Order: sequence, then structure tokens, then C-alpha cells
Amino acid sequence: MTLDEKFKALQADHAPGQEARQSPGNLNSIMRGERLDGTAVDFSHGDVDAFPPTPGSDLLWKEGFDKGARQAYTEYRGSAEIRNILAGRLGKFTGRPVAADSELIITPGTQGALFLALGVTIGAGMKVAIVEPDYFANRKLVTFFDGEIVSIPLNYLNTLSEHGPDLNRLEKAFKNGTKVFVFSTPNNPTGLVYSKKAITEIAALATKYQVTLIVDQLYSRMLYSGATFTHLCSLDTLPENWITIMGPSKTESLSGFRLGVAFGTPQLIERMERLQAIVSLRAAGYNQAALATWFQEPAGWLEKRIAEHEAIRDELLNIFRAANIQTATPQAGSYLFPKLPALSVDLLTFIQLLRIQANVIVTPGTEFGPSFTDSIRLNFSQNHTAAVAAVKRIVKMVEIYKL
Amino acid sequence: MTLDEKFKALQADHAPGQEARQSPGNLNSIMRGERLDGTAVDFSHGDVDAFPPTPGSDLLWKEGFDKGARQAYTEYRGSAEIRNILAGRLGKFTGRPVAADSELIITPGTQGALFLALGVTIGAGMKVAIVEPDYFANRKLVTFFDGEIVSIPLNYLNTLSEHGPDLNRLEKAFKNGTKVFVFSTPNNPTGLVYSKKAITEIAALATKYQVTLIVDQLYSRMLYSGATFTHLCSLDTLPENWITIMGPSKTESLSGFRLGVAFGTPQLIERMERLQAIVSLRAAGYNQAALATWFQEPAGWLEKRIAEHEAIRDELLNIFRAANIQTATPQAGSYLFPKLPALSVDLLTFIQLLRIQANVIVTPGTEFGPSFTDSIRLNFSQNHTAAVAAVKRIVKMVEIYKL
Repeated sequence: MTLDEKFKALQADHAPGQEARQSPGNLNSIMRGERLDGTAVDFSHGDVDAFPPTPGSDLLWKEGFDKGARQAYTEYRGSAEIRNILAGRLGKFTGRPVAADSELIITPGTQGALFLALGVTIGAGMKVAIVEPDYFANRKLVTFFDGEIVSIPLNYLNTLSEHGPDLNRLEKAFKNGTKVFVFSTPNNPTGLVYSKKAITEIAALATKYQVTLIVDQLYSRMLYSGATFTHLCSLDTLPENWITIMGPSKTESLSGFRLGVAFGTPQLIERMERLQAIVSLRAAGYNQAALATWFQEPAGWLEKRIAEHEAIRDELLNIFRAANIQTATPQAGSYLFPKLPALSVDLLTFIQLLRIQANVIVTPGTEFGPSFTDSIRLNFSQNHTAAVAAVKRIVKMVEIYKL
Repeated sequence: MTLDEKFKALQADHAPGQEARQSPGNLNSIMRGERLDGTAVDFSHGDVDAFPPTPGSDLLWKEGFDKGARQAYTEYRGSAEIRNILAGRLGKFTGRPVAADSELIITPGTQGALFLALGVTIGAGMKVAIVEPDYFANRKLVTFFDGEIVSIPLNYLNTLSEHGPDLNRLEKAFKNGTKVFVFSTPNNPTGLVYSKKAITEIAALATKYQVTLIVDQLYSRMLYSGATFTHLCSLDTLPENWITIMGPSKTESLSGFRLGVAFGTPQLIERMERLQAIVSLRAAGYNQAALATWFQEPAGWLEKRIAEHEAIRDELLNIFRAANIQTATPQAGSYLFPKLPALSVDLLTFIQLLRIQANVIVTPGTEFGPSFTDSIRLNFSQNHTAAVAAVKRIVKMVEIYKL
């Protein structure tokens, strides 16, 4: 693949947050009916005005700034002081102790952690298993590192059989030489939490076939009623090489700080630091100070945040289902991934119409896997009232453009 | 090259700022004479306590934070508002207008810009010309992207012939299929400013042989008495593909914010944004707000900062030269790159001895090119008095360990 072809494949115009760069083109000839008025809602990412950053995060930033040189220039893997604090908390959260010195790296966002993790494990031509649907960058990263994508379907919508990744397909992929498996749980975009049985079997298969596991647990703190979460790293049987990725960008709304962490096999963390040294040196030094708020929020703060999201989730699910739009119930996180009925316009056009005609931004399903031409993703971490009104407009738009 | 070999080649233990991860080993059997007491000086990077960040940068960060969602989630290439401000200032500074929408990207530090620039221009097996000595990450980036390094010597020490890169070697490299040339001016680690003649000829050769030029001008604002700077981008003849990199981490001491910019050929900037989307999404949103201080410092602030650095430079040069340690006069930036006489211990051991016995941290010359086993780099952006005392200790250490 030439560089030109590679970067065509990495196009980001439809990625969340890039909508400002799209030219609306000539939608007038296609548009039917009136414009649907209402408060603009950008479901492409969470609204940190509706759910603001963890209390005190800005004050900690200022304390870091005032500390001066010591905070500005940390080791590439992040401040030893902050790693020490976080290692204890992450160990407690996941049920597996984390060694601050050798098993943990602070990164520029969870995206930064994912980039480093795949950058140190994917060589040219290597087969990498990717779940579909899953976080859109996974596929792009494999392409960038000249790997080969092996698709693993996720059963998330059909309620007749068990939900989760197709483990037969996974074993077949491992048997056929796949060397890395990267996946998110809770899954982005569906909110599916991998069961203990699935996680255990993934770890057993990876151990058997010597596959590196990279698990993105960005949303593992925002669990809804009845959901239980299994941390890969807490299992007794683990493959030699594994990395867990987390960060405070979502539930905690610290995305504007670009902070994340990865923890796992020391050899991989060491490589990740070497890569970080040439990618961006380190997560911004002063910003790292804000990590001291993480897992240390005021009493009741997290519970309240989860309850507020669950209330939004439930109301939006009701609206979609009342309109017969199939939508899985997310067990965690803040994404909905409804499947739309057949429309008279293609998905990208419909999404542009949503933006222009209905003042609503969503992300096309095709960002999460090439086959999801009938799905859209919504991050419902929004003002409750505005989100409800916007989803009603989406339903109206589906009715207008239904085949 | 396997991933294991690649990451061995990317080892960062001797990179600036990583000294805390080195184990001192058994230096006692080697150490001669007494410990040399004095205030610890870390010459591996500038001291932002001695030269603090641009006034108001922390207040602008807070304003950004208070702006909320709009500042937290910018386009991947950075806030349009801030790009608009910067494009005008960069155009004025360089003498070439910069289009905010298509020619400029905000990155996580100048390191981030360099990573993206090389990531979008180097394909596997491609020949890349690298100056020796030059910024240590250049070589590592070529290795990471599976390119092939073609060395171009820099004449910086010998005063008999003209200073600058060996342009005959450069043309030969271009003739032999080199497709990318990356270099820093002012040069890191020597402080050499490429002459107008050299820059013009580099651009002419790159145009003739269709080579992509990537110029790192990180230090181009800190010019000492008598130095004149030529901006590659201001030339009439430019190759089709070029990128200029700058940032406020050094002269302006904003390193703790991780901010940089790249501007150049729109097609390359577009690719860089696509790569940024999977590397770390964007430079931290709130931090971007601090860029409004850049090129807009209080009256006299920059002049004072330069004068203070020039005074340190002159005093350190005098100390080295009085001890017959050959050191080029930097025309810009805050690095000295003295060449040490033959020592009874190897370079890395001497540097460890400097740290343990003399409380001084410097960076080995070998980070800037494999042949510089007799040189050390000092970032003299330090407290003036402490720096002078520390360089006197270095001189004493050279005397102790001289062959």
C-alpha cells in the first residue's frame, strides 16, 4: 500500500467531531419537508457542559503548573508520584495489583494509549483480530501499522442467542496465525459488557495460541443497574502479553486534558514508553496533575453521574423502540447504536440531512465496521431535555426518509 | 527488522529527562577524587523555574477550561479560532502567508509535529536524509517508520571551511533516491543557523529531485547578536512538499502544555490530521488556549529572555575554552555541544560519573549521531549562577578523567 493509499484509507471526515470540515453539498434537492427546529445536539461526543469535569480538576492543574519544572518535565511514562497514586487505585478497582514502576504508563488520552499499544505489538503483515462493531480507531490503527484485519462479529442485537463476540470465529482466527486481539468492553458503540464467561474464554484462547490481548476498558466505571464487569487482568489465566487501557475522558469528562493510562506486561509498557518518547514525549506535564482526582471523586459523585446517564438512556431507548427502531440496551457507557430501517437516501446523506435539517449530529455506523451502513451512534452524555428532543427529531427524520 | 529489534533500537534510557531510570551500577570502583558539591543542574532540558512560562499562559488555560465543551473538543487539527490567530502571526514571522484552514495544524508539542510529519512522508524502505549531529528523535523516527537513514555531515566545529551541512553529500543522496530530508535550524545540538545560501540551495536541490523537506525551526525566535535567520518557507523556489515545524516549548517555556504547530503543503497537513486522529485525537483542548500568548508576549519580554540566555552562553563558552574544550558558538537556541578530550572512561560512564560525583546531568553526544562519542549536550536555559558553577564542575571532571 502506498502512503497515498494508506492515508486515503485513514480519512477522518466522518469521524466524531470532524463534522465542521464537511461541506454540505447540494442537499436542497434531496431535502423533504420543513426544517425541524430545536436545540442543536452533537451526539458525536459527550457534552462536558452538561456533565462537567470532575470537581477540582482545574485546581489540581493549577497546582501542577505552580510546581513548575518538576511537573512540566516528567519521565516519558509519566510522573512517578502520580503513577504511584494511580497504581494503588487501579489495583483496587481491577482486583489485580499494578506495579507503578514497570507496569503503568500515563498517555495523552486513551487514544494515545491505544496508539502506543498497537504500535508496539503490530508489525507489517501481522494478522490482528478486530471486533465488528468496535471503536473506529482500532481498524484504522491496524491499517496504519500495515497489519491485516481479521473480523470477529459481535452479537449485540439479536436477543435469541447469547450476546458477545463470536468465539468460534476468534479461535479460528487465532489458529490461523492472528497474533493480536484488540477489543473494547464495555463495547463502543453498543454498550455491551463482555460476560465473565466470554472474557475467561478469550484469555484462555489467547494463552493457548500465544496471542497478545489489548483491552480498552474506557467505560468500565459507568455500569448501569444489574451489570457486572469482569476485568481481564484479574483472571488467573492470562496470556504472556496483555495491556489494559483506561482513562478519565468519558465518565469523568476530562477529555480536554488528554489523559489516559495503560497497564500490563512490563516489556510492552517499556516499548510503549520508547514509542511515546518519539510520538509526543509525554502526556502534558501540568495536565497529569489532574489525574489525582481520578477514583477519588467526592462521595456520591460517580453514583449520581451514573444515575443521570441511566435516566437518559432509558428515555431515549423508549423513544427509539416506540418508533420500532431496533436498539440494544447498553449495559454501560453512554452510547446508543440504533439500527435504522431502509431509507431512501444513503447513510452519509441521511446524517448530513440530520445535521442540516434537524440540527443533530450523529456518527455513521460505518465508522465502527464496514457493514453497519444502517446504524448510527449517539453519545447520550448530553443535556437530558435537549437529548430527548433531538432523538424525537431523529425519529421524525427516519419517518420522513423511510423507504 | 522484528518489533523486538526495532524497539531495542529505540531505547530511550539516555534520552534527555530519562536519567531517573538509569541504575548507577558500580561506579565506586571507577570514581576518582572527591565528590564535587554544588547545586544540582539538569542540563538535559531547560529549567522552567529559572525561565518561567510566558506571562498569562496559565490564565488563558483557565479561560479555555471555563469555555467548556467548545474548547475541550476541537477539530483534530486544532481550534479554528486559534489557528486563525496563529496563521496571521506565523505568516508575519516567517514572511510567507499561512492559510489557517488548510496549511496549519496544532500538535501535542513540536515532537508531536515531527512525529506526524515523518509519519505521513516515510514509507517502508524509503531513504531519508538526516544531518549529523541533529535532534535525536529524527533518527529514531526513521527507524520506527522502517525508513533508511542517509547521513549528511554538518560542519559546525572546524572554523577553516564554511559551516553548514555538506551540500555535496546532500545532492548525492538526493540523486541516489532519497525522498525526504529532515533537519533542524537552528541546529539542535550545535546552535548553528543555516545560512541563506544553504537554505536556498537545499530548497533548489529538493525542487530538482522532488524531495520532501521537513524543517524543524523550534529555536528560530531565540537569535543571538549578529545572527540572521532564513525561513525555508519564505523562499521563491520551494519543492512541492514541505513542512515547517515550530512550537512554544523552548524560548517561551510552555513545554508543560505540550503544544506545537506544523504548517506547509495542504495535502501533507491533511494527512497529518488523519494520523493525529488515531495518535491522540488532538493537542489537549484547554492547553490550546495558551497558544494565544504566542508571538504576543509583553513588550520587551522576548528581548530580555534572549539577552539573559546570551549572557549565560558567553560565560559558559569562556569557561570551556579556557579549559581548551572545543565548543562551537551557538548563534541561536540554548544548547552547547562541547567536544571533550580523550577520557579514561567511555562517554556513558563519564556522564554517569558527572551525575553521581558532580551533581550535573548532560546528554551524551551519541543521541545526536553515532559518531559523537566525544561530545556532550547542555541545555543552558538554566539559573545563570548554578549553570556557571556546574560547568566549572564539568571542566574539573574532565581534568580528573582525562587520559
